Amino acid sequence: MNRKMIAYFVGRVLRIEAVLMVLPLIVSILYREDEWIYLAAAVVLSLGSGYALSYRMPKNASFYTREGIVAVAFSWILMSVFGAIPLWHAVSHIGFTDALFETISGFTTTGASILTEVESLPKGVLLWRSFTHWVGGMGVLVFILAIIPEVGGDNIFLMRAESPGPSVGKLLPRVKSTAKILYLIYIAITALEIISLLITGMSPYEAAVISFGTVGTGGFAVTNNGCMAYSQVQQCVITFFMVVCGANFNVYYLIVARKFRDAFTSEEVIAYLSIYATATLLVAVNIRNVFGSFWEGLHHSFFNVASVMTTTGFASADFNMWPNFSKTMLLLMMFIGGCAGSTAGGIKVSRIVIGFKTIRKELAHFVHPRSVKILKFERKPIEHAVLRGINVYFLTYITIFAVSILLVAFDGKDFTTTVTAVIATFNNIGPGLEMVGPVGNYSQFSAFAKYVLMFDMLAGRLELFPMLLIFMPMTWRRQR
Amino acid sequence: MNRKMIAYFVGRVLRIEAVLMVLPLIVSILYREDEWIYLAAAVVLSLGSGYALSYRMPKNASFYTREGIVAVAFSWILMSVFGAIPLWHAVSHIGFTDALFETISGFTTTGASILTEVESLPKGVLLWRSFTHWVGGMGVLVFILAIIPEVGGDNIFLMRAESPGPSVGKLLPRVKSTAKILYLIYIAITALEIISLLITGMSPYEAAVISFGTVGTGGFAVTNNGCMAYSQVQQCVITFFMVVCGANFNVYYLIVARKFRDAFTSEEVIAYLSIYATATLLVAVNIRNVFGSFWEGLHHSFFNVASVMTTTGFASADFNMWPNFSKTMLLLMMFIGGCAGSTAGGIKVSRIVIGFKTIRKELAHFVHPRSVKILKFERKPIEHAVLRGINVYFLTYITIFAVSILLVAFDGKDFTTTVTAVIATFNNIGPGLEMVGPVGNYSQFSAFAKYVLMFDMLAGRLELFPMLLIFMPMTWRRQR
Repeated sequence: MNRKMIAYFVGRVLRIEAVLMVLPLIVSILYREDEWIYLAAAVVLSLGSGYALSYRMPKNASFYTREGIVAVAFSWILMSVFGAIPLWHAVSHIGFTDALFETISGFTTTGASILTEVESLPKGVLLWRSFTHWVGGMGVLVFILAIIPEVGGDNIFLMRAESPGPSVGKLLPRVKSTAKILYLIYIAITALEIISLLITGMSPYEAAVISFGTVGTGGFAVTNNGCMAYSQVQQCVITFFMVVCGANFNVYYLIVARKFRDAFTSEEVIAYLSIYATATLLVAVNIRNVFGSFWEGLHHSFFNVASVMTTTGFASADFNMWPNFSKTMLLLMMFIGGCAGSTAGGIKVSRIVIGFKTIRKELAHFVHPRSVKILKFERKPIEHAVLRGINVYFLTYITIFAVSILLVAFDGKDFTTTVTAVIATFNNIGPGLEMVGPVGNYSQFSAFAKYVLMFDMLAGRLELFPMLLIFMPMTWRRQR
Repeated sequence: MNRKMIAYFVGRVLRIEAVLMVLPLIVSILYREDEWIYLAAAVVLSLGSGYALSYRMPKNASFYTREGIVAVAFSWILMSVFGAIPLWHAVSHIGFTDALFETISGFTTTGASILTEVESLPKGVLLWRSFTHWVGGMGVLVFILAIIPEVGGDNIFLMRAESPGPSVGKLLPRVKSTAKILYLIYIAITALEIISLLITGMSPYEAAVISFGTVGTGGFAVTNNGCMAYSQVQQCVITFFMVVCGANFNVYYLIVARKFRDAFTSEEVIAYLSIYATATLLVAVNIRNVFGSFWEGLHHSFFNVASVMTTTGFASADFNMWPNFSKTMLLLMMFIGGCAGSTAGGIKVSRIVIGFKTIRKELAHFVHPRSVKILKFERKPIEHAVLRGINVYFLTYITIFAVSILLVAFDGKDFTTTVTAVIATFNNIGPGLEMVGPVGNYSQFSAFAKYVLMFDMLAGRLELFPMLLIFMPMTWRRQR
């Protein structure tokens, strides 16, 4: 393990974080808030630590998968630690654990909050809180790939640790230039949403906060009750962009590359939209008596199903009050999540589709034991390593899920709160049901439970393994 | 698909069922109950249908995996249909759906009940209800293997469909004689428990009913509140036999074969006992204030953890009233289940252990990408086909689990009731939490939800695939 290179990598990331934090700092100064000083302090501390860790490149620059994975995990943790500074000091009666929870929730695009009253937060700090979604959304990595060339060599292995899903890495022969294109697409979508929301009459500040929360599929809003106060038109705009950001960004890449046929026949995106449409319709029928009309129910179904499936976590209504079938449907959507190669969390549609195909193949094997059928996805045969990876992913997913529930259960909260808190953090959604429902929050958990949920948010966002590896003694043992 | 051979196989099974039903019929006549007539009718109908289906061996006796699997699924379904006749007529105001639910719950050794008042049942019918556990426990198959030789050839493939877990089939080079030995062990354990309970002062009738429920890891008792009324000594006896029957029967086979060293170093059994001991201790600490003393809590923890882990489903206390940590722990134990090659349900300890090893190997691969490590279980390398089978099993398990929850949620019951009803039936335990807790029952579900849960009980008991295959069109298509 080349620890010096890991420190160097993390240092570079912290320097970038300092630069990004200048935006909320400027906003804070423009609004003449006293709390600008905490943002300034965070910028200085982050920049200073960043330079201390990366003032010069280590002589031994070897950087393999293990270093990459550990570096990614530590980047997210340390970014969150430094990013928590403004919140910690700007909010009264908040401990460091809570500030860290909120910031990890931001960078992992979860949107689970421990704040009982978001409205009183200074504007600069609130913007930073939502901006972490935007930064986290595309992944530290994709933008690290576009900015830091010094690490050198074939960076594709890093995609394994950070890309949201199993397939994004395959598409890209030249990681660096592709990362830049994806990054530009990401900025373009954000700009489009901000403009759309401005047209609907939203204030520029609010449009920016909501857009950061949408495009990063995070879910932090300007008020405690999410998007409930917005007009139907504004909610429709947000719904549209949530669905856009839950789809595989490869599709937008293909559109930019003028490969329209490939773009519009993406198996994963078609499955994603089909699941979304089906779930929306079922929920709409189920909640037809909750709202004034079927159409109003359909509207809220469109919004909230999109919100949980893309793991954003905005709410246009308190779905904790909906009938049980709808609540269960929303919970299942939380597990599925968005597409691979999107900013969404969850298991990902591609893994679900490949999982179903694996089951169908097994059943066919019972009927025709001698038939040899090769599984395909997106019209290409699925490599054995990918299949194995997905199987191990599911095993690891179940294990972390079960252990987390047990640990959070120490708090003694009711079963639904305990289970949905883990579901909503591990899949990076935000709100669950009961105490952690759309109008509730995570403040009442013990510090221990909060650290478990922080681990879950990070594990869910980083595709499970990086967070496990940093706790394994073998990772830290000297090379033989 | 050789449909005639499937019918022949199912016919043989129904003939055996008729013979087995003579025992409760005799008991009913001895107790001079009017309801003996329904048992007699079931014997006649079962025997008649059995002979009609199997009066002679089909000319084409080809019998491959697919025929075996489909035959097993239909055997369980038709045994349950005929087995439901006595209950259907002997209990007032019970529909056929409820009678079938109760009987499937019996044969699958689940123990989930729709009866609101077990106490008023005639003794013969109640004995039959618990006897179905005993019959189902060892699996239709093992005793079919010992009794029907006509199907001929190498019957090992059938073990795949019915043996409870991944490893029992490997051990046995000569299936038929081994099945006989396992069968004798099974009878011996049952006899031992009956004698032990008689010594504690239990009536012979009750000792038989409870022993059938324990050895089959079923959970149907003589009263609605399970084993709560028994003395601590009687509860200890039951605990001991639950733990014995949740262990891998290969161990008892090895003891009979005088291979003591192999028997006492079984990796699966050691893991099983370790998990059991750890869970018991954690629950005991958590419920220390629920009972008069820590020791009383420990006693109930021993009993109820054993009950859910072995998927028996007896209760010595209403654990639905326990603190949330204990309830969550019990729910997790329900998923783990007992050992492969036992009468228990659940995912099985061996799969859990192999799953953990797979995850550890994946993590090690990140750190040492070029190392080649072979996974071992019970001191033998795990074959690739077994690993693949376990992975597909997990995928299929999650899928059936998620779809079942969604379908049962149509009923609109609360989240905990819905989820734990599926957990408790799919893993063949019996009681869940809330409405389906130890003092509750399944009578309030709709017929639709009951059929979903019946499917889950059968799927869980038959290792998932047989129940899926009979619903696949490709299974029924003509051979090419």
